[in-house]
Amino acid sequence: MNAAPLFARVALIGLGLIGSSVARAVRQLGLADELVATDASPQVRARAAEIGLADRIADDNAAAVKDADLVIACVPVGACAAVAQSIAPHLKPGAIVSDVGSVKAAVLRAMAPELPPHTHFIPAHPVAGTEDSGPDAGFAELFINRWCILTPPAGADAAAVERLAEFWRRLGANVEVMTAEHHDLVLAVTSHLPHLIAYTIVGTADELEDVTRSEVLKFSAGGFRDFTRIAASDPTMWRDVFLNNKEAVLEMLGAFQEDLSKLTRAIRRGDGEALFDHFTRTRAIRRGIVSIGQDAAGPDFGRPHGPLPKTEGEG
Amino acid sequence: MNAAPLFARVALIGLGLIGSSVARAVRQLGLADELVATDASPQVRARAAEIGLADRIADDNAAAVKDADLVIACVPVGACAAVAQSIAPHLKPGAIVSDVGSVKAAVLRAMAPELPPHTHFIPAHPVAGTEDSGPDAGFAELFINRWCILTPPAGADAAAVERLAEFWRRLGANVEVMTAEHHDLVLAVTSHLPHLIAYTIVGTADELEDVTRSEVLKFSAGGFRDFTRIAASDPTMWRDVFLNNKEAVLEMLGAFQEDLSKLTRAIRRGDGEALFDHFTRTRAIRRGIVSIGQDAAGPDFGRPHGPLPKTEGEG
Repeated sequence: MNAAPLFARVALIGLGLIGSSVARAVRQLGLADELVATDASPQVRARAAEIGLADRIADDNAAAVKDADLVIACVPVGACAAVAQSIAPHLKPGAIVSDVGSVKAAVLRAMAPELPPHTHFIPAHPVAGTEDSGPDAGFAELFINRWCILTPPAGADAAAVERLAEFWRRLGANVEVMTAEHHDLVLAVTSHLPHLIAYTIVGTADELEDVTRSEVLKFSAGGFRDFTRIAASDPTMWRDVFLNNKEAVLEMLGAFQEDLSKLTRAIRRGDGEALFDHFTRTRAIRRGIVSIGQDAAGPDFGRPHGPLPKTEGEG
Repeated sequence: MNAAPLFARVALIGLGLIGSSVARAVRQLGLADELVATDASPQVRARAAEIGLADRIADDNAAAVKDADLVIACVPVGACAAVAQSIAPHLKPGAIVSDVGSVKAAVLRAMAPELPPHTHFIPAHPVAGTEDSGPDAGFAELFINRWCILTPPAGADAAAVERLAEFWRRLGANVEVMTAEHHDLVLAVTSHLPHLIAYTIVGTADELEDVTRSEVLKFSAGGFRDFTRIAASDPTMWRDVFLNNKEAVLEMLGAFQEDLSKLTRAIRRGDGEALFDHFTRTRAIRRGIVSIGQDAAGPDFGRPHGPLPKTEGEG
């Protein structure tokens, strides 16, 4: 392991869950001589200064990126173009510019044309998160054993790609490189479609006539609560994801709808064999995820189950 | 708290996740003078004897229920009628007979006509579970702070209902009483529909042409993995749930489909405002579930995030 900082100056734009997690990890690991950060919100900047997220909190994007060797935009996908415009004139030659967006082709289209040719633009997506948002929600360990996907455009500088890959590896992530288009297809199924479905079902449950909201909450341990975590994710981020990965999401939705129709038909016809076969197959996939370390192996997501109530006089 | 056992003899039929959890809790809490258990599978009976799940493992249902004051069928819903037939001639007068099925009206229809009038049939549903199955998967704490819904038929003996309620309270559960029909509607939305959707999406992801299964597993932390836990639940149990709560599930599916169409249309039209409004609303529901203690408050379902890798020479 190398003890020297990877970058002289790192600049983070946006201090939500991801930005503030990167900030904490960079400081804990000493990956930068100086960490500069900023956020569009004055409240967030004040809070970041208060809890010491960076060596310096800059007032705006231009000031933040000055002399930075690595700039990471940790903002919703829809804000990426404006960030690129605001930083372009202030970037140091040779600087690496990246992002953390959940959609990559749209980010590439939005940011690449704005950035000067003497910089290296390498989009990235750390596949990690929780349902919490804001500068207090981040933690340095968020990226450990998670994947970070880099989608360098054709002709990207190999040394710059490797430096950014090394940065994410230091944060604990496993790095994978693919095209932006393939990324968007993979994430449409592993992330975007699940979020859309979860958002839908949680909304459906909240609007029923015969079942009250209080009943839905009370009896949520039967399965519903597993959907509510992802349906509690940041609304702005997710609005932008769906607006910017429309084609892939609609394609996956089409496949999902076909499969749902098949299962619905099996229920309507009382076809127990078709249901049993389907449910047996999906079980294997869960085991695959646990075996490669992408989820906790403990039952119930490792949720705590407290001790039994003490009964007096018990043996 | 009462130190005396609640029942002289308790009999459990079926030692899967739920049955073996009840067994462990009954023994730990000393709720029965004698706990007798059985299972249709000789392998499960042998394993249960080996790990000491009950005071006595009976070879069949008839032997298990002899002289029992409380009999609980912990079997898939589809097996309830056969269990009722097999135990009916052997039940002690005044015995309470119950079950743990996730569907209640069908269980009532299947079991009630088989049972002798000198017994008290009180269907029950502990809303608790994990994705694991079998006699080794159970644990005594499974029901703590979870709901157990009783659906006594009209005219049920109030004292028997109260004794069964007390039994579940001792196991740590909160007890609620409602009609079988209302139960089936509430669970259709909080449990059955979420399972059907999870089973569907996990199957969809496994059949894509352009995204490999290995990619789906690798990048599952983006949301997909939250669906895989419930899509790993016991296939037999879930087949029976859908076959036996068809009407309510199809009704909820209809509402879900309408809502999904609305969100799909918003994506297709690029209607960011509609998406944002929906996503903001669903966030509040998650908070409600955490605030009433039906899920862990820790981010990411409290999933562990290990320490950062040590870098030599770090400050």
